[in-house]
Amino acid sequence: MRIAIDVMGGDHGCQVVVDGIKLALQEYPALKEVHVVGDQKSIEGALARARLNDSRVNIVHASEVLGMDEKPLTAVRRKRDSSIVRAAELVKNGQAEALISPGNTGGLVAAATLTIRRLEGVERPAIATLVPSTKQDFILIDAGANPDCKPFYLAQFAVMGAIYAREIMGRARPRVGVLSNGKEEIKGNELTRETAKLLQLLDLNFIGYVEGHDLFNDHVDVVVTDGFSGNLVLKTVESMGKSILRLLKRELTGNMMRKVGAMLVAPGFRNIKQRMDPDAYGGAPLLGLKGNVIKAHGSARDRAIMNAIRVSMEAIQHHLKEMIQEEIQRANQRLPQMVIAPSATVAA
Amino acid sequence: MRIAIDVMGGDHGCQVVVDGIKLALQEYPALKEVHVVGDQKSIEGALARARLNDSRVNIVHASEVLGMDEKPLTAVRRKRDSSIVRAAELVKNGQAEALISPGNTGGLVAAATLTIRRLEGVERPAIATLVPSTKQDFILIDAGANPDCKPFYLAQFAVMGAIYAREIMGRARPRVGVLSNGKEEIKGNELTRETAKLLQLLDLNFIGYVEGHDLFNDHVDVVVTDGFSGNLVLKTVESMGKSILRLLKRELTGNMMRKVGAMLVAPGFRNIKQRMDPDAYGGAPLLGLKGNVIKAHGSARDRAIMNAIRVSMEAIQHHLKEMIQEEIQRANQRLPQMVIAPSATVAA
Repeated sequence: MRIAIDVMGGDHGCQVVVDGIKLALQEYPALKEVHVVGDQKSIEGALARARLNDSRVNIVHASEVLGMDEKPLTAVRRKRDSSIVRAAELVKNGQAEALISPGNTGGLVAAATLTIRRLEGVERPAIATLVPSTKQDFILIDAGANPDCKPFYLAQFAVMGAIYAREIMGRARPRVGVLSNGKEEIKGNELTRETAKLLQLLDLNFIGYVEGHDLFNDHVDVVVTDGFSGNLVLKTVESMGKSILRLLKRELTGNMMRKVGAMLVAPGFRNIKQRMDPDAYGGAPLLGLKGNVIKAHGSARDRAIMNAIRVSMEAIQHHLKEMIQEEIQRANQRLPQMVIAPSATVAA
Repeated sequence: MRIAIDVMGGDHGCQVVVDGIKLALQEYPALKEVHVVGDQKSIEGALARARLNDSRVNIVHASEVLGMDEKPLTAVRRKRDSSIVRAAELVKNGQAEALISPGNTGGLVAAATLTIRRLEGVERPAIATLVPSTKQDFILIDAGANPDCKPFYLAQFAVMGAIYAREIMGRARPRVGVLSNGKEEIKGNELTRETAKLLQLLDLNFIGYVEGHDLFNDHVDVVVTDGFSGNLVLKTVESMGKSILRLLKRELTGNMMRKVGAMLVAPGFRNIKQRMDPDAYGGAPLLGLKGNVIKAHGSARDRAIMNAIRVSMEAIQHHLKEMIQEEIQRANQRLPQMVIAPSATVAA
């Protein structure tokens, strides 16, 4: 398999991404070529520091980087030599089968949509994130690609999320729920109510509304929502997880007796930390495009990058985009027709 | 102080509410009269079981109860003898200074808005919930009264939330943030972007967007959002908190050595549990009405009900509604004028 990685956009710079590539090359023999896209000098330095000298690595120079506070669509159109655009072009041209980037979500969505383009009939690509839970993990889609959504988009997200849960997570008939402020049908807002109507028309195991209380109780496999709410929930979960671990550490080392106790329970803690660790997932696919695109966490470190590469390889192996293409077209036939925007128009 | 409590709508029935009233009567001497509103026979039974025989208790019979899956506005208009409507009327007629209910949010909002009515110039009442954090607690407004919102509403929520944080939580110049999917100005959705523009016009300590990652890091005192997103975040936090505590319990009693360790660290755990305990707050005020209205948690038990009563007493003591009346009128003068809906129109 051949992949392209934008190494410039992450919070921790290019080194950790290169370190992650090294881990992946050691771990996954199926990886035949890695295009490392970004500033040539920085990459060469990082490769040297990582002592990574591997014929499977191919440096692709890009002179620009997308900033966090640029309007993604404008920036992608203007910065044609940015690392994210160059990496996307490698996928478009067939030189790579997947694109991975820890850069900002808006930039990745814009670059991927403009360059790689959406699958036919897909209105908006969406990020499907695996959320760790103390019981069973679930998929949250959209986790941040589309802050403003229409019901039709959410219906398509449900189809794509269900494919991901089935193919990658092995859930035979994934339970699909719409994230809402209560389980009763009269709850929700305009968007969720219209979405629920559409989902009843589709061949999905649709279980209705799910609320915050259901997320960690193994009630649902695919949680469908707009990218604004999805991102709120995701970041709240991450932030709260970290906050509780910090508090535990402080409380459990408060005095000598507790320190001894903490030593005895330490293996239990490690299990919990591992379960809650976002690095174990590493990357979330942006579904609905003509190529495999993986958003790595902005704060991803080497192990998270390695896992994002694994996620991209799974997407390739399972022919995810081909399945989405097929099932979205079938779904569209059941949905009330919507005026399909020309493929170049993107909500950034 | 005189209060009215709807004892019928909670998840655990009328007994726990009556038990909570008993605790409050013991704890708060300033409580001069409690109107206990609901089915007379059930209340009498609960009072007997609680061995509560106190001249400050006054039973007010109501023959109906609002159901969870009724359309709130229709139900409130039709069920004039429901406990929530009767309790709201006591506030309207001046027989009680505050209304407390563990019943469903939609019903409470509809009954309170139709009966007690909004303060002049207030577009929508909003729920201000105190969210426990491992660092410093913060206010989330709106936590669920208005699933569909306009920017103007959110601007008013910010004003009301800041008053609450200042008067009740003692934050001198509360930091007000708009909940968004990222800190940068270009993030957010249509609603948050327009809201941020309005908040810059007001005399608030407005700090811009806050995202999930900021919530538990003591970055913000008042988090402004629509009732849909607010409710999602709140329930996610509650659900995850419970889930982690469950997991900890399981992991830390996994074998004999860990059990011994768990005993040694137990006091640390109790501290954490207390900090994260929603019962410690008990009730969230519905701000913007001509009376004090407190939403108690649906799953509130006796101690939570007692705390909800305390919250209502604080609202009375601090003249919260008078301050809101004054500051909302000042804020409205700074905001671009919006066509104010006649006060009887409510979004249910």
